[in-house]
Amino acid sequence: MANSATNLRLKLPIACIILEVIIIILFGALVQYDDETDAKLWHKEIANGSSNYDNDFYYRYPSFQDVHVMIFIGFGFLMTFLQRYGFSSVGFNFLIAAFALQWATLMQGFVHGMHGGKIHVGIESMINADFCTGSVLISFGAVLGKTSPVQLLVMSVIEVTLFAVNEFIVLSVLGAKDAGGSMTIHTFGAYFGLMVARVLYRPNLDKSKHKNCSVYHSDLFAMIGTIYLWMFWPSFNSAVTAHGDDQHRTAMNTYYSLAACTLATYGLSAVVAHDGKLDMVHIQNAALAGGVAVGTAGEMMLTPFGSMIVGFLAGTISVLGFKFLSPILEEKLKIQDTCGVHNLHGMPGVLGAIVGAVTAALATKDVYGDGMADVFPDIHSGDVEASFQGVRQAISLAVTLGIALLGGLITGFILKLPIYGAPPDTICFEDGIYWELPGEEGSHEELTTVRTPDEAEKLNA
Amino acid sequence: MANSATNLRLKLPIACIILEVIIIILFGALVQYDDETDAKLWHKEIANGSSNYDNDFYYRYPSFQDVHVMIFIGFGFLMTFLQRYGFSSVGFNFLIAAFALQWATLMQGFVHGMHGGKIHVGIESMINADFCTGSVLISFGAVLGKTSPVQLLVMSVIEVTLFAVNEFIVLSVLGAKDAGGSMTIHTFGAYFGLMVARVLYRPNLDKSKHKNCSVYHSDLFAMIGTIYLWMFWPSFNSAVTAHGDDQHRTAMNTYYSLAACTLATYGLSAVVAHDGKLDMVHIQNAALAGGVAVGTAGEMMLTPFGSMIVGFLAGTISVLGFKFLSPILEEKLKIQDTCGVHNLHGMPGVLGAIVGAVTAALATKDVYGDGMADVFPDIHSGDVEASFQGVRQAISLAVTLGIALLGGLITGFILKLPIYGAPPDTICFEDGIYWELPGEEGSHEELTTVRTPDEAEKLNA
Amino acid sequence: MANSATNLRLKLPIACIILEVIIIILFGALVQYDDETDAKLWHKEIANGSSNYDNDFYYRYPSFQDVHVMIFIGFGFLMTFLQRYGFSSVGFNFLIAAFALQWATLMQGFVHGMHGGKIHVGIESMINADFCTGSVLISFGAVLGKTSPVQLLVMSVIEVTLFAVNEFIVLSVLGAKDAGGSMTIHTFGAYFGLMVARVLYRPNLDKSKHKNCSVYHSDLFAMIGTIYLWMFWPSFNSAVTAHGDDQHRTAMNTYYSLAACTLATYGLSAVVAHDGKLDMVHIQNAALAGGVAVGTAGEMMLTPFGSMIVGFLAGTISVLGFKFLSPILEEKLKIQDTCGVHNLHGMPGVLGAIVGAVTAALATKDVYGDGMADVFPDIHSGDVEASFQGVRQAISLAVTLGIALLGGLITGFILKLPIYGAPPDTICFEDGIYWELPGEEGSHEELTTVRTPDEAEKLNA
Repeated sequence: MANSATNLRLKLPIACIILEVIIIILFGALVQYDDETDAKLWHKEIANGSSNYDNDFYYRYPSFQDVHVMIFIGFGFLMTFLQRYGFSSVGFNFLIAAFALQWATLMQGFVHGMHGGKIHVGIESMINADFCTGSVLISFGAVLGKTSPVQLLVMSVIEVTLFAVNEFIVLSVLGAKDAGGSMTIHTFGAYFGLMVARVLYRPNLDKSKHKNCSVYHSDLFAMIGTIYLWMFWPSFNSAVTAHGDDQHRTAMNTYYSLAACTLATYGLSAVVAHDGKLDMVHIQNAALAGGVAVGTAGEMMLTPFGSMIVGFLAGTISVLGFKFLSPILEEKLKIQDTCGVHNLHGMPGVLGAIVGAVTAALATKDVYGDGMADVFPDIHSGDVEASFQGVRQAISLAVTLGIALLGGLITGFILKLPIYGAPPDTICFEDGIYWELPGEEGSHEELTTVRTPDEAEKLNA
Repeated sequence: MANSATNLRLKLPIACIILEVIIIILFGALVQYDDETDAKLWHKEIANGSSNYDNDFYYRYPSFQDVHVMIFIGFGFLMTFLQRYGFSSVGFNFLIAAFALQWATLMQGFVHGMHGGKIHVGIESMINADFCTGSVLISFGAVLGKTSPVQLLVMSVIEVTLFAVNEFIVLSVLGAKDAGGSMTIHTFGAYFGLMVARVLYRPNLDKSKHKNCSVYHSDLFAMIGTIYLWMFWPSFNSAVTAHGDDQHRTAMNTYYSLAACTLATYGLSAVVAHDGKLDMVHIQNAALAGGVAVGTAGEMMLTPFGSMIVGFLAGTISVLGFKFLSPILEEKLKIQDTCGVHNLHGMPGVLGAIVGAVTAALATKDVYGDGMADVFPDIHSGDVEASFQGVRQAISLAVTLGIALLGGLITGFILKLPIYGAPPDTICFEDGIYWELPGEEGSHEELTTVRTPDEAEKLNA
Repeated sequence: MANSATNLRLKLPIACIILEVIIIILFGALVQYDDETDAKLWHKEIANGSSNYDNDFYYRYPSFQDVHVMIFIGFGFLMTFLQRYGFSSVGFNFLIAAFALQWATLMQGFVHGMHGGKIHVGIESMINADFCTGSVLISFGAVLGKTSPVQLLVMSVIEVTLFAVNEFIVLSVLGAKDAGGSMTIHTFGAYFGLMVARVLYRPNLDKSKHKNCSVYHSDLFAMIGTIYLWMFWPSFNSAVTAHGDDQHRTAMNTYYSLAACTLATYGLSAVVAHDGKLDMVHIQNAALAGGVAVGTAGEMMLTPFGSMIVGFLAGTISVLGFKFLSPILEEKLKIQDTCGVHNLHGMPGVLGAIVGAVTAALATKDVYGDGMADVFPDIHSGDVEASFQGVRQAISLAVTLGIALLGGLITGFILKLPIYGAPPDTICFEDGIYWELPGEEGSHEELTTVRTPDEAEKLNA
């Protein structure tokens, strides 16, 4: 099933090892422990009266691990729904995430400000690197089954870099808030990936159509991914918000949004799916849209009531997107979006950005009290009005969409070069092209027990 | 395989959307952030000298996430053991849990006391809502494979409500202790579900008998559920105990009880199972009984020694229950308990209640010191003797059994109405009735490679 | 498929119940709550000004749960890669881990110093017991598929005991540091297990060769194990280090080591695997070697740069070991190492010990500041030079190898006694020998749909 074009013996080792060597050299030159991970610096803080229990490790690490599970188990297994692409879904997810988190540490370090020429690392940089990785994995979902691991690594190099630039513009230049990344992670990752998929459009992909679907157990593996993403989304949205009420509130808003989204998803799925039955694609994906859609406003005083309305809307548009919009995207716009990231991350991300802008514009001192300083420091300090904060949020969405689409366009053309070992149209969605596959269970028995009379005669002779 | 009676196109959307709209309206009218999630209120506490690090989020949220995993992965995958009911096991578990946690927030808010006409929500209400959800999922185990999702939602509405009433009577009126819910969660959920199963008795269920068993990989999926429940049970039992030694001790007691229970389960399984082999049903279920059985006494000074004895007993009665009692329940009492919840939650829950009553009755100031104030505030304050606390615990068990059985009876009759799209006797334990099913892996290849000589000739011609 | 020799009806119950009864008696006689889990003692500390939030539960329990997941899900599912050994992989892993953690509590309590004749237990003893259990599970990997559960329990009894002795010598007598257990856990477990496998060498194991491989879905189950081990390894290495910067730094060093290791693994796998494709065996195992290799030095000031180099080397030697060394071990040294623990735990463990020795020898006050007191208390106090600390580390490696090899040798001969129900050479790697197996999914349908013309005629007649 392999041929020289897709043979990875040279291409993948060269990509992996060159990238890792570059990373190690840059880490050697530029990366240092921060105040909380460096033995000497932290113990200076101890000498000044801090307690070891004040180390931010204890207030961020549990959230980090939840996010980590979402990145490696959640995204990885969510994509195992394809019948013969489980090794690649989990395996390439693993590879590009392990690469992207290192590269993101460097890129985010560069743009978010160096400390005396050095990048300082600790638990917050680890979470932010995982967040950036999440964005790459969303794009991976759009091109799943149609790309080689070398293409994915090249895409990660560019996407991580542009993610860091966009994040810097949105959060630092424009002063927008986006703790759970409705804009910076989901909208960015989705539209970047969709544009890459557009450029890599394969008119003859129907030759692999019979592989582009699930089987019973692959759908169950995918549910592992779905459920982990769903459970830990409250940790995702709250992982880098301010300590105290902010983290607490963000987690709770997300929890309610997801619960309402799930009810909407089941209800809508039964309406639109074939024959009044539920469709696993909706359950696996649309039930998560509620987490995406409160990624910006989750830390604000959205209230459980507001969170539920947002979640309900997100689940609704996501199911409708799978049913009605995805076929149009594929036929009219020539965007072959394997996982439907437009429905799970694209539209709910935009919804989340809009909800964030509106919620910000409505912020009042009466509601936030002194907590305004954590959520909207510029409103608290009097630098901007709440309405203007809303405008900032809206501009940030536009900027994110622009960078994502343009970046995806350029990246798509780079990935089109015929040097990365991409699969031919006839063998997409197929592990066998990049992985040594084991034999089938029971195949030996089958040959000896289910046979034609002629074969049986020969054996008995 | 579907027919108009089980078609969900109208029934499920109506149920989901009406319920969610009611919930959203009630949340809008009644639910508010508590002191630790509200920006203004928390920052008042900060102004009064609190630190953001004192927010209860940091001392409850990791436990909450462990409980969350038990509810959605643990219960969900434990029930995937059936060969063709994995989508429904995980999927309906997901649906009713997402609904029940919202409804529980309201019902528990009503009965546990409103604050100025409002329900205050934060991390503790989230944990308690998940606990209540666990009870519903236990009942789900008893009726697994024989109910439609609409029936399950209706059951959840009633069961959550009665759970909140029973919890209020046991904890607030009677003053019993039950941090891990041996009574309020396990005993309640099990006997409620068993009574529902009794009323829904299907004399012709043997028509679906060939589906009511596992296959190799479905048993492995189920082990994911088992192991997650087992690992995180210490977090479950300790999630809402008092901070400090209480949480620490409860987690540890549960850990030892489960370990001892597991050894008993393996030992007993090899004794009673066919042909001196181990039975997966025992391992998947009975090994967890140790967590159930220290749900009440886990926070008390049970000692590791006591915890192990309780765990050992729980594993023993659970395996024996699967072997000897379940067939009797089905044949004589007409209770078709799909998952054997009587063996995992019912009997061990009652055992846990009794152990709790005895341990409470034996509490002395000499053993608990000032810690008595956290575990048994009424004994500490001198309001009651330890022996009377034991009586309270015993009465609580009786009340719980009464409300569960009566509630289950009524609920069963409500669910018997022929309007919910329940499956016919011939298609129980079958995903295909409610889910769009994918084709089978390799089915295409099989048709083209394993064929009869006649077919092969035609193809070659 | 079962015969009287492998029938467990008497053997396993006797082993489980006798062992559990012994444990319960010893716990009753010897084990007490420590200061942080005992109601009275903890409240004395409260009376002296401590806060409930100071309880170590809050600073260790999240790490403990991550380690717990590695032990029960990580190790358990990693070994499900075999096509027909999933029940035993997860199930025996579950059994021996549940036993070993209890036995380890006692053995580690004995050698690490009793308090007034009693063993005090709390969150740290729980983590240490899980660590010791990990070592047993590594050895299990070497003999996977070729041993009965009774043999595994006997092995656990001896291995846990020797683990505690070795750990005491390394950490307490020699004063070495080994927070993540490169030596005490990985090197010990691997070489102990390899020696047991050597003694239990089966010259006719090729009779079961067709079972000693994976199938598609078994490899996906195994990836659940791999990914969980990978994600939570930072928690493993940092679970018992000093609070503050130490835990924080150890987690971060491990995270970077693993990321670099993963890139090396993918690169090397494509180089050495057949036909330029990736080999699941490498991905499932070698990608984890980076966690093993920073088990000793992770808490030191290794820097992210140093961690990545170590991880990269570990991944490289691990892949090369699978490709070139494992066949030699089997053919020349007669070590049938089912899971390749020599490549994942053995060589990377030794590498980790060496890295630890070198890093310790290079420790300077200039780099560690007052943090030296936590990482190297004896260097801080002036008792030893850094170079001598390096020597201590190196001696510890030698001691560990000696005790592991000698212990494994003796254990192997004990396990060779023909009384434990070991499987015959022809039925290794087969669940059916110890487990009641369910029927196959669709087997009924297959018989009725794929048949020979003769059969079809008969049915139609």
